Amino acid sequence: MTGNGSATPRRIMLYDTTLRDGTQGANISLTVDDKVQIALLLDDIGVDYIEGGWPLSNPKDLAFFQAVRGRLRHARLAAFGSTARRGRPAEADANLRAILETGAPVACIFGKASRFQAERILGQDPEAYLGVVESSVRFLKRAGLEVVFDAEHYFDGFKADPGYALDVVRAAEAGGADWVALCDTNGGSLPEEVEAATRAAAAAVQVRLGIHAHNDGGLAVANSLAALRAGADMVQGTVNGYGERCGNANWVTIWPTVVAKLGLAMGRPEALSRLTTFSRTVAEIANMAPNPSDPYVGENAFTHKAGVHASAVRKQPEAYEHIDPGLVGNDRRILVSELAGRSNLLARFPELAERADETARLVEAIKEREHRGFQFDAAEASVALLVREVLGERLEYYRPLHYHVWVSGVQAPGVEATVRVQVGDQEVLEAALGDGPVHALDGALRKALGRFYPALHELRLTDYKVRVLDGREGTAATVRVLVSSRLRDRTIRTVGVSPNILEASWQALRDAVDYALHVTGTPVLGKAPAEAARS
Amino acid sequence: MTGNGSATPRRIMLYDTTLRDGTQGANISLTVDDKVQIALLLDDIGVDYIEGGWPLSNPKDLAFFQAVRGRLRHARLAAFGSTARRGRPAEADANLRAILETGAPVACIFGKASRFQAERILGQDPEAYLGVVESSVRFLKRAGLEVVFDAEHYFDGFKADPGYALDVVRAAEAGGADWVALCDTNGGSLPEEVEAATRAAAAAVQVRLGIHAHNDGGLAVANSLAALRAGADMVQGTVNGYGERCGNANWVTIWPTVVAKLGLAMGRPEALSRLTTFSRTVAEIANMAPNPSDPYVGENAFTHKAGVHASAVRKQPEAYEHIDPGLVGNDRRILVSELAGRSNLLARFPELAERADETARLVEAIKEREHRGFQFDAAEASVALLVREVLGERLEYYRPLHYHVWVSGVQAPGVEATVRVQVGDQEVLEAALGDGPVHALDGALRKALGRFYPALHELRLTDYKVRVLDGREGTAATVRVLVSSRLRDRTIRTVGVSPNILEASWQALRDAVDYALHVTGTPVLGKAPAEAARS
Repeated sequence: MTGNGSATPRRIMLYDTTLRDGTQGANISLTVDDKVQIALLLDDIGVDYIEGGWPLSNPKDLAFFQAVRGRLRHARLAAFGSTARRGRPAEADANLRAILETGAPVACIFGKASRFQAERILGQDPEAYLGVVESSVRFLKRAGLEVVFDAEHYFDGFKADPGYALDVVRAAEAGGADWVALCDTNGGSLPEEVEAATRAAAAAVQVRLGIHAHNDGGLAVANSLAALRAGADMVQGTVNGYGERCGNANWVTIWPTVVAKLGLAMGRPEALSRLTTFSRTVAEIANMAPNPSDPYVGENAFTHKAGVHASAVRKQPEAYEHIDPGLVGNDRRILVSELAGRSNLLARFPELAERADETARLVEAIKEREHRGFQFDAAEASVALLVREVLGERLEYYRPLHYHVWVSGVQAPGVEATVRVQVGDQEVLEAALGDGPVHALDGALRKALGRFYPALHELRLTDYKVRVLDGREGTAATVRVLVSSRLRDRTIRTVGVSPNILEASWQALRDAVDYALHVTGTPVLGKAPAEAARS
Repeated sequence: MTGNGSATPRRIMLYDTTLRDGTQGANISLTVDDKVQIALLLDDIGVDYIEGGWPLSNPKDLAFFQAVRGRLRHARLAAFGSTARRGRPAEADANLRAILETGAPVACIFGKASRFQAERILGQDPEAYLGVVESSVRFLKRAGLEVVFDAEHYFDGFKADPGYALDVVRAAEAGGADWVALCDTNGGSLPEEVEAATRAAAAAVQVRLGIHAHNDGGLAVANSLAALRAGADMVQGTVNGYGERCGNANWVTIWPTVVAKLGLAMGRPEALSRLTTFSRTVAEIANMAPNPSDPYVGENAFTHKAGVHASAVRKQPEAYEHIDPGLVGNDRRILVSELAGRSNLLARFPELAERADETARLVEAIKEREHRGFQFDAAEASVALLVREVLGERLEYYRPLHYHVWVSGVQAPGVEATVRVQVGDQEVLEAALGDGPVHALDGALRKALGRFYPALHELRLTDYKVRVLDGREGTAATVRVLVSSRLRDRTIRTVGVSPNILEASWQALRDAVDYALHVTGTPVLGKAPAEAARS
């Protein structure tokens, strides 16, 4: 069953519903353009089916189907809907007709595989409802579509009345469904329940089965794997587990497990090493913070902090890693933190090797700053500058003299900043407007220093994150600012901490500038700036 | 085995390692005081064992053991360490002696249940290492301690060499261990592997077994449950799944599953309904953002957004909820969002019932603002004000005329804000200093309005959150500010959006003030303020 050792492993189909079920999660909202971008990424990574939306429920989805038409190379596009409404023949049902109007080659319709749900939520006679399921599927098949029937509430329905749940699956098969996806709609089933109920369906029908799991018990991945073990050949899930309540099954976790641990085929093998970038790009488009603890692709998935683990990992990576991070395009990270201490610092900064006193002072300096709220895990450039500082090798490219920021609102709104610096024996004052105070401050600092250090013209801010460290104090809380900048192909990550968000931003912006000058090997200007720098 | 229907269900022991393994996660750092606070909460919620730290590795942990001594009513305190170092008798091993020095009644020591790990990472002869395991355990037992032996890498070790993995478990038993916790240290095992290897251990030894799972495959909860099915009686895990890489098994998810779904006994039954508050309080102390998608206790765990689900849940909660949220002290939430539309709004604001035009305009207004980045899910007070506004019933308590904020840094740092408002026919200008610009702005606004509306003296800001909506634009990105305020026992949550963080904060602060005046039924002052308001 698992394909281990067989010549051609069993192929599991990957059915993505990020654009439909995923958008039902709280805090997530996708524009048509976002959906098109994500669909192209899904196609590129090798997903087999992309559920684009529910055209009747959300008219915006029609625009998506039009926009994406003809642009997918591999994936088949699916439109979502429900069985026909009560008392309406399938061919007159607006919902089924809306599916046809999308032009998608695949339809996915859901129906209740639960006597309780059919009776109490739909208010239908459960036996009559079997005919609705069959005729709804048949209508779509006659229109030439591939049809996936989502057997909603199948597992809860099976627990309460196995005969009826299987009758619904049989009705979908009788209508000609290509797939029946068994749904743990409420997400509360246990793996052993999913396995047994999937086996029962596999024994009752010939139609190919899929699994659609939710994570309300923290078991969506395990339940999906249990269904594959019991004979299902399709996984429905979302990127990063987005979805209603606790989310859908996260196929970004399932894919590498199916391929690397079960030995089955899934997706495009050559794309697996792009999974980490894929996951984070979708998060960026969806405007969701990536979860650093996500299996395989999370920023911390191969991060080692504790001293004992960090030193063992250096000897033998497999000592504390279940797979090679390169398999999914992720990286190993060794953190600098109070738990890690000397051995981690030495691994990252070989120049500390013979300098025990400086290393001890560095450990102290890091501890003291972490205590105040600095987070060096996410700000490698700020750590590197701290190392230079403790070694007495940090260059003073300029001396800051002051900054001022003015913000006005209601009548005559506006934002202005000035920055005054000394470079060599020359003082400069520059001013900048901005969309907000940090933007203005950043502009004024670069304007002042760019005159002297043209390398800074290539430095671009790419991300700006704010974390309130102690929410309990409200607006007087300490704030941590993380800034990501790009210098050619290099990412520079810096940090600042203060109760004043502008002061914290100023620290992080200054570190970004200093690090950019440091890595480009820029010499310190000790005198009046070369006039050439102005060009 | 599952205890369903039996008079006295089997009891599963809950062993918490948040304070030790949990702190090895990236981005988490606990002071001694944080650890004491968390230990008291763990004790209160009914955890059986609290692993307080690794005294040899982290000297700060000794201070914790001293601070917490005598303050636990139910839980037993465990000190962590390893088997004796190579070539050293147990009684001379600093690590084992450090455990005794903590005064904790329980010791937990880890040893390698893997031939590969013993040979390659410890550099020991695997057969000789069995004696080290046995003598290390015996040393601690002779000192009168309860001993838990963590069989590190047991599942990977069992896969490669089952005989040796079981020999290590037998050695711990021979030394007198009270428990052997089987560890999936690298977190990559599958539930069926965990179940089989746990059954093998249960068949080989008499000592009681535990399970220690990590989440690198997204299966830590499933693997813990699989081990319970195979005969383990102890779950080791952390609150909210904190821990290295992808985290430890999250026992906040496991506890309600074990009790409500497996029918076994675990923790203090009467405390289960405080689980949600407990989980969020620990997150607050650990300064970690609670994960809104967490099973059972997440803010979204019982949140319904999609129109079809939201309306079904109103008819029959069990239609889309796997348990009653009250069981774990969580709440059902129906979101206002572009997906939800009219029916959700009508459920939340019955006053809209007969006013179709206004409701349609409200839906439009919400959509337009959500498109710009407002997040009404998390800002109920701002929604309520928008409803009043669309109904033409929002009161104008004052008219803002301007605000100014000044921030200076480097030399003579300082923060000042002024706010000018008109109340009735009177204009007032007030100024305030602050730790940061938002703090100063908040102070000036309350100072100006508090003169007229004394109810505002009771309004306190409790949380302030910033989210950059489009990281790709760096400091020019749009910023969303969420403000939580407390008015007596009521929480007021408001939102503001702008590329300018101060303007976004100003919007959220103004909404908080307006809502506080609205819910207290404060009348609008149309004339000069009563002199009494100054007192």
